[in-house]
This record gives sequence, C-alpha cells and structure tokens, in this order.
Amino acid sequence: MKGIFITFEGIEASGKSTLSNILYKWLRENQINTVITRDPGGTPTGEMIRKILLHAETSIDVWTEALLYAAARRQLVAEIIKPAIFNGSVVICDRFSDSYFAYQGYARGLDLNVIIELNRIATQGIKPDITFLIDLPVDMALKRLNEKDRLELEDKDFHEKVRQGFLKIAENESQRIVVLDGRKPVDELSQIIRETVMKLLNFPA
Amino acid sequence: MKGIFITFEGIEASGKSTLSNILYKWLRENQINTVITRDPGGTPTGEMIRKILLHAETSIDVWTEALLYAAARRQLVAEIIKPAIFNGSVVICDRFSDSYFAYQGYARGLDLNVIIELNRIATQGIKPDITFLIDLPVDMALKRLNEKDRLELEDKDFHEKVRQGFLKIAENESQRIVVLDGRKPVDELSQIIRETVMKLLNFPA
Repeated sequence: MKGIFITFEGIEASGKSTLSNILYKWLRENQINTVITRDPGGTPTGEMIRKILLHAETSIDVWTEALLYAAARRQLVAEIIKPAIFNGSVVICDRFSDSYFAYQGYARGLDLNVIIELNRIATQGIKPDITFLIDLPVDMALKRLNEKDRLELEDKDFHEKVRQGFLKIAENESQRIVVLDGRKPVDELSQIIRETVMKLLNFPA
Repeated sequence: MKGIFITFEGIEASGKSTLSNILYKWLRENQINTVITRDPGGTPTGEMIRKILLHAETSIDVWTEALLYAAARRQLVAEIIKPAIFNGSVVICDRFSDSYFAYQGYARGLDLNVIIELNRIATQGIKPDITFLIDLPVDMALKRLNEKDRLELEDKDFHEKVRQGFLKIAENESQRIVVLDGRKPVDELSQIIRETVMKLLNFPA
C-alpha cells in the first residue's frame, strides 16, 4: 500500500504545528503508521540547514536562502518522506513546497519560475495528497507570537504578502488544499482535519 | 577601476591552497589590494554550509549537496566577491564554478544543464578573469593527503573523473584557464602564476 502525504501550511503562529501534532497522536492511537516531520528540518542535515536559516547572525542573500530551503527539502524527501510513503505510512509535514512558493515567490518576489524549478529538484515531483492551510489574519498571528526568530521579526507587510500568497495557491489548487479558519477553536479544527483524513484513508468514522 | 577575479582549481592536495596563498602574500607585499577566500566558505553562512558538506556524519543526497554548494557560492559572490571586484580589488578564490562542474557534473554525473542553471543562480553570471588549474596525477595527490574529510575518502576512480572533468573544462576554455603541472616545484609554479597575473594587471615585471 502506498502511504499518504499530508502537509500543514500557514503563516507563523497560525496553529499548524499544534494541529499537526494532534493529528499525529490521533493516527498513532488508531494504530496507523505515521511519521511526523517538518520542513526545513527533519533530518540531521536539514536541521543544520534550518539553524542557518532561522538563526543566522549575519544577513543571508535572498537566493542563498532559496537554495538552502531547496537543499533541506531535497534531503527530507530523499531520507524521510519518500521511504515512508513507499512503506505505506502516513507522513505529516509541517510546511512544504507551498511555503516555498508563498515566502520565496509571493512575499520575497523572487522569479517564480526559478523557484518552481528549484522546488522540482528538491521534491523530485512529490506532492502532498492533501494540504491543510490554516488561515489567520496577520494581526492575530503576531499577537500569538512569543518566540522571536529571524522570520518572525519580518514586518507585518511581509506576513500579509505570505498570507495572500497562500490563499492564491489554495485558490489554484482547491482540490488538494483545504483552507481552515485559524480563528476557530483547536477542537473544532481538529475534528474537521480528522474527518478529512479518515475519508482519504477510507477509514470508518 | 574594476578588480580582477582569480581562481585556483584542481583535485584535493594538488597544491591550490599553497599556491593561492603565495600569490596573495606577494600581491599584498606589492601594495595591491587583494582579498583571498574559498568556495565553499568565505562568509559566516558559507562556512556553516562548508561544515555540513565536508563533515557530515550522515550521508547527504547528491542533489542536496549540489544545492548546498550553490547556496554557499551565492553568498560568497554577494557578500565578498562582487563588492571586492567593484572596489577594484584583486580577488583570489580557492575553488569556484569549475569545481562544481568537475565534481557535481563530471564526477557525480548529475545533469550538467541543471548544474549550469544552479551555478547561474549562484554566481549571478560572475566568471573568473583567469583560472589556474593545478593538474596532478591522482596517485600523487592521494599520497600527499594526510587529513581525511568526507570528500577525500572518495575512491580513486572518483578523483580520476574529477581530474578528467577539469582537463575537459580547461580544453573548452583555454583562454581563461591556465593548466599547470602540479608535479613541478612550488617556486617554479609560483613564478609562472606571478608573471601571468602581472600581465593581467599591466604591472611592470
């Protein structure tokens, strides 16, 4: 059996990580082989790249950044995602290609064709079966933030561009991407996510 | 005045670093503004990437590697090489694009068109004005090695492919690339390098 690849997307503090962890625990409790990971990261090499990206003391060129994200994703696909899907596991990933398009493409304004080509090298063509986009107004997200890393210090305008980028991608790929209102309570969102995944797994409710 | 960009290329232990350092000292002694650097590396971000590439404890996917080399080169060009050349400095770099083509393209066998495209993103089109390729038979290079890092543990056959890759590139770009016989004494090689650079700088001998 081929596994299922699920991604969570959204701006910082949208609730992605919380919701993906709840889904992970629920699947494991139901004896479904599940792997949870994050992009960038998830592998020893990817975590080192993540450190460079999120905690750099010096400023990183925008294309250096784009190449590093692609490198981390490539390693994650090769080392974790592809083998797990091949093994029939469910793979849950916190961020993936859509974040690349939203941040590097829409928000940073890098040439989208080059970003798509880099992502092709990174993913080897692997696409999520389903993506939950947790949409949240930027003001609310910023209020939720208590940790500060490099990306989170970007200005409001940047986050707004990212949010709009995500919504545009979701519009173009409404078959794959489920947009959820991040202002709703976690329990309610979890329930919708569970039901969607159950259908995908042909799992009795 | 626009600066001059000089690169040194060759397989491991060919003598590149020694010869580039001798040239660097000589230029500085002659009051010529000179910057010496290395690829991958040369910037805080690039040195972190170098660490991942050369001292990884886990195996890195070949395309992750290719993307990381491109990321390090991009940062080096943006942060060091471009500003220095713009300032009228001589820039000496230990390895650059030719190593990418020889190692990732010729030796690893990755799609050369993709490697060329990644290099275009990395270099922003910057090319060395002159490149010294220090050519050495693989047997002699391996005998010289005493440090062991990941690349140096690759087998003889791999180094041979890299060497042949370099020679092929040099054949195609004989205007830019000066091939030097790495078996010759350092003093003799340094003298040839000095004379070539002096001509390029219109500097009296």
